[in-house]
Amino acid sequence: MKAVALAGGIGASKFLAGLMAVLPPEQVTIIVNTGDDFQWMGLYICPDLDTVTYTLAGLANPETGWGILGDSFHALERLQTLGCDTWFKLGDRDLATHIYRSQKIREGNTLGQVTGDISRKSGILSVILPMTNSYVPTEIQTDEGTLAFQDYFVRRRCEPRVKDFLFRTIEDAGPAPGVLEAIGAAEAVFICPSNPYISIGPILAVPGIREALHETDARIVAITPIIAGRAIKGPTARMLSEMGQEVSALSVARMYSDFVDLFVLDERDAGLLPRVASLGLQVRLADTLMDDHQSKIDLARKVVEMV
Amino acid sequence: MKAVALAGGIGASKFLAGLMAVLPPEQVTIIVNTGDDFQWMGLYICPDLDTVTYTLAGLANPETGWGILGDSFHALERLQTLGCDTWFKLGDRDLATHIYRSQKIREGNTLGQVTGDISRKSGILSVILPMTNSYVPTEIQTDEGTLAFQDYFVRRRCEPRVKDFLFRTIEDAGPAPGVLEAIGAAEAVFICPSNPYISIGPILAVPGIREALHETDARIVAITPIIAGRAIKGPTARMLSEMGQEVSALSVARMYSDFVDLFVLDERDAGLLPRVASLGLQVRLADTLMDDHQSKIDLARKVVEMV
Repeated sequence: MKAVALAGGIGASKFLAGLMAVLPPEQVTIIVNTGDDFQWMGLYICPDLDTVTYTLAGLANPETGWGILGDSFHALERLQTLGCDTWFKLGDRDLATHIYRSQKIREGNTLGQVTGDISRKSGILSVILPMTNSYVPTEIQTDEGTLAFQDYFVRRRCEPRVKDFLFRTIEDAGPAPGVLEAIGAAEAVFICPSNPYISIGPILAVPGIREALHETDARIVAITPIIAGRAIKGPTARMLSEMGQEVSALSVARMYSDFVDLFVLDERDAGLLPRVASLGLQVRLADTLMDDHQSKIDLARKVVEMV
Repeated sequence: MKAVALAGGIGASKFLAGLMAVLPPEQVTIIVNTGDDFQWMGLYICPDLDTVTYTLAGLANPETGWGILGDSFHALERLQTLGCDTWFKLGDRDLATHIYRSQKIREGNTLGQVTGDISRKSGILSVILPMTNSYVPTEIQTDEGTLAFQDYFVRRRCEPRVKDFLFRTIEDAGPAPGVLEAIGAAEAVFICPSNPYISIGPILAVPGIREALHETDARIVAITPIIAGRAIKGPTARMLSEMGQEVSALSVARMYSDFVDLFVLDERDAGLLPRVASLGLQVRLADTLMDDHQSKIDLARKVVEMV
């Protein structure tokens, strides 16, 4: 089965780790959010792309969800001595990825080419694509002004109240080569359990991608990132609240209702089933709390069977 | 006593470590060779500048002579996995210096400004100046063609036979701000026991520096980098031989005889004294083999007393 997954970082990577045990990895194309990319000290840093890549390469740090397992932070410590802002935690091995990517992009390669290069050299059989080759940093409009994404997300720990998500540069960007083709050729598209505003939202904001989801013959399945009104990790629940939405999977389902065929609710949220169904979606229940490797595989198997 | 030192990397740093125990560090300006600078993966790397900086900051690795003591090599290992040439050994903490310098230069700072910034933040009281702010990589003409300096020096381990040293871009460069002023104001100038071709040679090739050495009222003292026909470390002896010169301190003294007042021979080379004196130089003997910290201080004290 040819499959596509739309992915953010940590939540998506858990589901993808399970999916790789259920589907042949070479049949899966993963389209990753790059709205969280940023540039620091001349380095081109793609946190979501790297989290997905490190996860599929078996390099990821399962405790933090980001970075490389067992990485050291010696370069960052010395950069701090030199007076640099070091609130974004970059390990030494992780830094190598950014040094490599930055240089390859300066040499004229696209982000998509470099991403493919890194993932092949990391032994990954799936295709990992950035949503776009353009640099399209998300901005967060907050009660303290408009903040660059990582400034809001890491430095300020999502504390300022969100008023809106700005994808200004995405509107002039196009999907990376292969993105529309993969969606068009897929039999299944998985919307990973990622933040709908800052992970899946930017992907859907790339001109042409939402349209491709409308047009594909693939069955499109979204897995809820919200369980019983709470996000497993990250600010999804807080953002729903700050955006004036009901803090539940229903709000996420509503954002996807124009293109999703099947919405996977957590079994703790069975009570929401009729309301999600009333959006015109098929709804199924599953245990979506992926707290160990087996539960990731179990969820992925169940979702694949639903398709 | 206001002093200036012309310095390469490892040999110079040994002498400078001693000098700092003898003179007030804030009275010393060190003018460092940058002909060995190179760019790799978008990083601006200055091996001699960093060896001097790390030495004076107490960070240097005394076993290798380069890099930071106890550094790890995790980023480099991963860059190797990604297919990069990694024959130049860059530790993780060392890498931070290059990331910082590269970014500051991209932001419009000069190499001299960044060097001063790094050395101040590393707690160094002396002034460290690059010989020039321009990027002036030395090339080595060999029997295998013309090689970039580090390509010859590190990758090829000085194996190709040297035919000439090319400072093509240096001819269009100027001394970094402060270089000529420091030489002019100095009471003593020390030519460190560095390689005369590839460490001191590029400094002397910067237009204006040799002239400033001719004109200064400072007493100029050179310490031999050759003891009993051998270099302590590095290719000085081999280069003298390949350039058709006598492999002895005499050949080094001859290269400096137009501007040096006093040449310090190793006491093992007392036999060379009359021949060096015949170049019109004062000559003194000292134990120049700096194999522990005390011997560095002893040599520096003796040389300062000679002045």
